[in-house]
Amino acid sequence: MKTSNLLLSTTRETPADAVVISHQLMIRAGLIRSLAGGLYNWLPLGVRVLRKVEAIVREEMNRAGAQELLMPVVQPMELWEESGRGIDYGPELLRFKDRHQRDFVLGPTHEEIITDLVRREIRSYKQLPANFYQIQTKFRDEIRPRFGVMRSREFIMKDAYSFHMDRDSLQQTYDDMYQAYNRIFSRIGLDFRPVQADTGSIGGDGSHEFHVLADSGEDDIAFSTGSDFAANVELAEALAPRGERAAPSAELDKVATPNKHSIEEVCDFLQLKKKAVAKTLLVKGAKEAAPIVALVVRGDHELNEIKAQKLEWVAEPFEMAGDEEIKAAAGCSAGSIGPVGLSIPVIVDRSAAHMSDFVCGANEDGYHFTGANWDRDAIPTLIADIRNVVKGDPSPCGQGKIEIRRGIEVGHIFQLGNKYSTALNATVQNESSRSQVLEMGCYGIGVTRVVAAAIEQNNDERGIIWPDSIAPFQVCIVPMQMHKSPRVAEATEALYQQLVGLGVDVLMDDRAERPGVMFSDMDLIGIPHRIVIGERGLDKGEIEYKYRRDEKAQDIPAEGFIDFLMTKLKGTQA
Amino acid sequence: MKTSNLLLSTTRETPADAVVISHQLMIRAGLIRSLAGGLYNWLPLGVRVLRKVEAIVREEMNRAGAQELLMPVVQPMELWEESGRGIDYGPELLRFKDRHQRDFVLGPTHEEIITDLVRREIRSYKQLPANFYQIQTKFRDEIRPRFGVMRSREFIMKDAYSFHMDRDSLQQTYDDMYQAYNRIFSRIGLDFRPVQADTGSIGGDGSHEFHVLADSGEDDIAFSTGSDFAANVELAEALAPRGERAAPSAELDKVATPNKHSIEEVCDFLQLKKKAVAKTLLVKGAKEAAPIVALVVRGDHELNEIKAQKLEWVAEPFEMAGDEEIKAAAGCSAGSIGPVGLSIPVIVDRSAAHMSDFVCGANEDGYHFTGANWDRDAIPTLIADIRNVVKGDPSPCGQGKIEIRRGIEVGHIFQLGNKYSTALNATVQNESSRSQVLEMGCYGIGVTRVVAAAIEQNNDERGIIWPDSIAPFQVCIVPMQMHKSPRVAEATEALYQQLVGLGVDVLMDDRAERPGVMFSDMDLIGIPHRIVIGERGLDKGEIEYKYRRDEKAQDIPAEGFIDFLMTKLKGTQA
Repeated sequence: MKTSNLLLSTTRETPADAVVISHQLMIRAGLIRSLAGGLYNWLPLGVRVLRKVEAIVREEMNRAGAQELLMPVVQPMELWEESGRGIDYGPELLRFKDRHQRDFVLGPTHEEIITDLVRREIRSYKQLPANFYQIQTKFRDEIRPRFGVMRSREFIMKDAYSFHMDRDSLQQTYDDMYQAYNRIFSRIGLDFRPVQADTGSIGGDGSHEFHVLADSGEDDIAFSTGSDFAANVELAEALAPRGERAAPSAELDKVATPNKHSIEEVCDFLQLKKKAVAKTLLVKGAKEAAPIVALVVRGDHELNEIKAQKLEWVAEPFEMAGDEEIKAAAGCSAGSIGPVGLSIPVIVDRSAAHMSDFVCGANEDGYHFTGANWDRDAIPTLIADIRNVVKGDPSPCGQGKIEIRRGIEVGHIFQLGNKYSTALNATVQNESSRSQVLEMGCYGIGVTRVVAAAIEQNNDERGIIWPDSIAPFQVCIVPMQMHKSPRVAEATEALYQQLVGLGVDVLMDDRAERPGVMFSDMDLIGIPHRIVIGERGLDKGEIEYKYRRDEKAQDIPAEGFIDFLMTKLKGTQA
Repeated sequence: MKTSNLLLSTTRETPADAVVISHQLMIRAGLIRSLAGGLYNWLPLGVRVLRKVEAIVREEMNRAGAQELLMPVVQPMELWEESGRGIDYGPELLRFKDRHQRDFVLGPTHEEIITDLVRREIRSYKQLPANFYQIQTKFRDEIRPRFGVMRSREFIMKDAYSFHMDRDSLQQTYDDMYQAYNRIFSRIGLDFRPVQADTGSIGGDGSHEFHVLADSGEDDIAFSTGSDFAANVELAEALAPRGERAAPSAELDKVATPNKHSIEEVCDFLQLKKKAVAKTLLVKGAKEAAPIVALVVRGDHELNEIKAQKLEWVAEPFEMAGDEEIKAAAGCSAGSIGPVGLSIPVIVDRSAAHMSDFVCGANEDGYHFTGANWDRDAIPTLIADIRNVVKGDPSPCGQGKIEIRRGIEVGHIFQLGNKYSTALNATVQNESSRSQVLEMGCYGIGVTRVVAAAIEQNNDERGIIWPDSIAPFQVCIVPMQMHKSPRVAEATEALYQQLVGLGVDVLMDDRAERPGVMFSDMDLIGIPHRIVIGERGLDKGEIEYKYRRDEKAQDIPAEGFIDFLMTKLKGTQA
């Protein structure tokens, strides 16, 4: 293609709401334009990237034996009522009435639709397992859409749903999808990690998120320095410290800590490290006999609400106790609670349970205990993992230590089990001709989000650096003063035609712009391979070549240039 | 692909609402399934066809220099208010509010969005002409969705919009699109005609519809037997009859026609042919001095409201006069009106104006005139073309006669002019650095509709007969008793692998079904080339081949079979 036939809408302006680099660069490079909050037009340059991502996703899904279908954007509300999600989903589910006053939603996901389809179409175990996917427009009415297409309201997703007679078959397809996702993100050329994840509100067991590693990511990922282990921080297990707990060496002593409420204030006042203090939090309990329970973590650790909520003692959803409940249960306000003398269940984190001679609130405003010791002064009801892992913790895999990095979630695979198939009564005849509820998995990739994540990971001060596989063009040709030099124009056109003939995806910049403008535009839009044709090179029988990531350009003899370029193209493709 | 990995949901059941053959066959062959009124799931077999249609459309649009982009399904209502279409469009435009109570619509078309984008992105005449397209999901809240995907609520359209500095440039792109559409429908393998069309509510001048010819079509298309001329019946000009009008030979005579109102009743009663009677209709007028006007057509002709409405005498929108208005203007009821003695303007169709000694209403209930003659008994205010053409009319192109056939509209190209660019103030700097309003064209193809239209045109009592270019698979292999004969299984698998290796899109039926079931399924889903492998053929060193349109199968020597098949595949592709 030639730039004269391409809407190349590069701009130096960055809108005020573009706080992440991918959003800024997608606007500046002319990949997208905002239409309204969370709604974007994809310009021709952006669509080229999108279609390449889609093509890789489609190829790998087909290769993994998944079948493409297409379900509507507009879904009848009835099915959401049948599954029970109509209420759960909240205002992100955009509801509306059609001209006949019937209720519909704009589909944020398609579990209900595919389960309804499968219960009507699949009758026998002989037709299973089956895995169906679509690449399709979704809508979520985000309260605050942000980060450009990373968290927009309308977006494109590849969503797949698999159906099975049993858990083993589900596990097999889940593993296939795990491999397919690895191939997809590898082929796109991203630095990514599959991480163990929580299944969240979608329910079911077994789930991995695929994260592109980038400092701007929204999620904290815990890695092992010694293995492939990776998990969402909220899910990574914090192991119990090794060895025996030290024996008590101090007496329990009540000290005045006037107006010291936070861990920082108490440590500052008593000249202590945070790890010497036990932090006690009161939360709503799940048992009638214990409507309020205490959770104790070390002062330098953070409570993990997801882990806590899974304990039988803790109410779901997780909720902190109110001021009056604290007063009633502990006799003091929130900053002075401690496990000593409490008459409610005390759940102690594994690391907190390993402390000796520690400091804690005295359940009396303005006072703390020093020299507190478990068993002697306070008896834990339960010792459990209820904190977030931190850097340096031993990895739960048994090898290496925990590192934490930020990631952007671009894919998610779930073992849903029979949540939807039970709700919608999706059954088939098994080998004994008996009706059996299906097992189900679901597998998503945020196609539009992948584009933004690729940019977050691959950019510099000059602009985007596309991986070859999804670049809008592999190669650009920048002629010097083509409109003044017929010789340059001729050589450029000849090379362009030759590359097109070889099937190279090439952009020729035929604008009457200064070289500086062309160079900065081609860097901004991130074309991996740049060729420059000029009078000087033609005189010397040379063509200038530069890889987007290289510091300097090289002069290559014109004679062997095509071979040189084709070798480069092969070398930089995944 | 093998059927064991394909949701092959063929069925004998036809839903009651499936009145057209394409709808019936799309259900029976398992291409689509209804989700709710006018909303369809596309099953894997259907998606394969859809993607092939899309690929052809995309290739030809790119070849014609159009640039692909992607606009949202959800559009802000503001832009529809700015263009003025928010009101015009009526209840087919589905409106809703988001969680912040802002007004949005589900896009039925994207003129507003692209014009808004272009007014913001294109600054200079140097960037024009430009033609942008998308292949995208649309929604129209049809009051009575019907005919399956032919008139559904959610559907896929290729919509393109071009922008120009002047009419000549618009005409050039319009002509390019005309050619591209011809290539697209030719490549798909359809029998189609580009026809001159009315621009309807979208406005502007110059428009062609592309119709697939099929008896089930909703539109009547007028063709010439002597040229390429084709036009929508509503638009084709009815020429004036040749020669002079015959001189009056009868006296005006009032005859009693008690209780005879319709042309049929009067002709029956007076023993006349319909062409001897003038039919007079009263409609609302456009001029203050003439709020009601009479329109006269020959008894065997039909009034064309679109043509009538274009006359300065006739009100827009076209509206028939009410009973009381008729009584006041003609002194009788609707069945007895005639031009003789009327004191309102009388507009006479060219053919009606050529009648002599004709019969017409006497403006008195229960009476008609015979022997009426123009000029002597009634003076036409205006003679004009206000009727539909009929079979046998001379073609307006001057060559041949009119034939009428039914068509399904699958594409439409418009010269919009500056309707939207004026409303949204889309201007650019021209060569003299002055701001100039853009000229605009738009070009649509109903992608999902093309699939249904292809079936309407290509089917028999056994099912669909796909054109090769869009068949879900080019070839199917049907093995006889594969599950009992290892030899058949081995030969089938070997041929399958060989064809896959050659890039042939092949479906192998590996189900443990009886041959009859397999044959009827493969015929129903319309695979163009069928190969049968069985013990008997293997014994004789032959492979059975049958083209879907052929009556009989052929036995081909196994040795040269691949060459034979590849030649067939080449020969049957457009």
